[in-house]
Amino acid sequence: MAGDHPDAQLFPNATGAAAAMVKAHQEEEPLKLYSGWFCPFVQRVLLVLLEKNIPFQYIEVNPYHKPKSLLDLNPRGLVPTLQYDDKPLYESTVVCEFLEEAYPSATPKLVPSDPYTKARMKIWADFVTSRIIPAFHRFLQYQPKSASDTGLEKFRLEFVEQLKQFTQEMDPEGPYFLGRDLSLIDLVIAPWVVRLWVFDHFKGGIKLPKEEAWSQRFEKWQKAVENRDSIVNSTSERQHYLPIYQRYADDVAMSELAKATREGKGVP
Amino acid sequence: MAGDHPDAQLFPNATGAAAAMVKAHQEEEPLKLYSGWFCPFVQRVLLVLLEKNIPFQYIEVNPYHKPKSLLDLNPRGLVPTLQYDDKPLYESTVVCEFLEEAYPSATPKLVPSDPYTKARMKIWADFVTSRIIPAFHRFLQYQPKSASDTGLEKFRLEFVEQLKQFTQEMDPEGPYFLGRDLSLIDLVIAPWVVRLWVFDHFKGGIKLPKEEAWSQRFEKWQKAVENRDSIVNSTSERQHYLPIYQRYADDVAMSELAKATREGKGVP
Ligand SMILES: N[C@@H](CCC(=O)N[C@@H](CS)C(=O)NCC(=O)O)C(=O)O
Ligand SMILES: N[C@@H](CCC(=O)N[C@@H](CS)C(=O)NCC(=O)O)C(=O)O
Repeated sequence: MAGDHPDAQLFPNATGAAAAMVKAHQEEEPLKLYSGWFCPFVQRVLLVLLEKNIPFQYIEVNPYHKPKSLLDLNPRGLVPTLQYDDKPLYESTVVCEFLEEAYPSATPKLVPSDPYTKARMKIWADFVTSRIIPAFHRFLQYQPKSASDTGLEKFRLEFVEQLKQFTQEMDPEGPYFLGRDLSLIDLVIAPWVVRLWVFDHFKGGIKLPKEEAWSQRFEKWQKAVENRDSIVNSTSERQHYLPIYQRYADDVAMSELAKATREGKGVP
Repeated sequence: MAGDHPDAQLFPNATGAAAAMVKAHQEEEPLKLYSGWFCPFVQRVLLVLLEKNIPFQYIEVNPYHKPKSLLDLNPRGLVPTLQYDDKPLYESTVVCEFLEEAYPSATPKLVPSDPYTKARMKIWADFVTSRIIPAFHRFLQYQPKSASDTGLEKFRLEFVEQLKQFTQEMDPEGPYFLGRDLSLIDLVIAPWVVRLWVFDHFKGGIKLPKEEAWSQRFEKWQKAVENRDSIVNSTSERQHYLPIYQRYADDVAMSELAKATREGKGVP
């Protein structure tokens, strides 16, 4: 099964709580999600599907060993790719907003009905994709060149600063970004927040300034999000993420995202 | 008036047809647009406002000599910045979608009501911002290092290839992207298409392959868009764009976008 792509040798399927979720979504459905069990962009879409209880069929593919079925739908060959009434759709944030609109009776509503609040949410969703995720990867992939190299610390601080800017936009009480209710902005960043352990494991931790108010607000938010059933049921066993993130931590991963990070670019 | 920023010495206001449009939008309105007359991201928002005939107040600011009024609204200090009922909003694509939703009775509708078509439009709007605009700037800012340097040709071809991919997604008849009617995707790319003359002026032209079908489709689309009143009335005299684009063509511009391009990054 493994292709020529150096990242193709990954564990083949979801495990733990996610394995049960995948098993429960094997039946043929008009809505199909081409998925990689490990992929945080896929998880965004899964979170929306699970929160809203939208029927879908889960199809595991290896995006580093792209099957024709995936490429036929999405010439970019990335997961998540959705098949909706035989028509393709991709780009995780576009897919999330699409699901909200295409299933208007599915609850909870994840997009605020007030146009201003909705626009503000989009600004910060875009901030996650264009700032936080690239900063996450710059920190994760950084390789110190010598013992006196301070680059890792620089990228750690840069990443923490982005989390701070994001957190300062949250409703002060919460626990969610917009207040008492979960919304799409929480789900757009959640997959990276539930992967923060990779920094403890590989890079000496992110070291949040626990005495600062924003950091306490962040942890309140983090706890609320981590405990959602949708998060629990879309997460596999840590041991299987480890070899994948090891390749990022050693900066040898060859995914489009890993390469873009090395070139100083954003999310592909 | 000119600040310390090397790009701050620009012509201070709109000219030509745009000057008349600006003059017609000086009265106080609850909706205010902080604008730079030369800015293509501002033009996106202007096009929506003008097409839909939404009342707004035009406020000229120099984003390279940021007044406090701008920074108070938008800490990123970029134009366009909108003030709506005293609340700020920014990021041109977010603002465009916001206007569609906040003024539901303003016509024409620019966003398709079918969720699937809307999602497809968003994928390609994102393609404009994340691929076409960076390719535009890599080509524009490229400086050959020697007589045998083929970099400019490489970046020209790369830019043409992006236009081709975009054009191939268009409705075959047109004239607009989605078919007979103008929509937001046309307006999201239009400001760069009406600036293609900068390549003729500075870089030897983009040299579209006129014999290829996609190139004819592109020109049909281009003509339809260039003739919209909204485009005509948001465009200033070419001579005043020239010194601004000269700085990009010489790769000495210091805007966030110019710097991002030099670092191989996307749109700030
Ligand atoms: N912008 C895309 C990014 C998706 C993405 O990068 N997915 C990864 C897996 S996590 C992928 O398919 N990689 C295949 C490759 O890099 O070739 C989205 O938001 O959906
Ligand atoms: N992502 C922003 C980009 C806006 C932008 O870059 N505007 C330029 C003028 S065209 C600006 O304000 N530049 C100020 C600076 O670079 O400091 C949007 O889409 O609105």
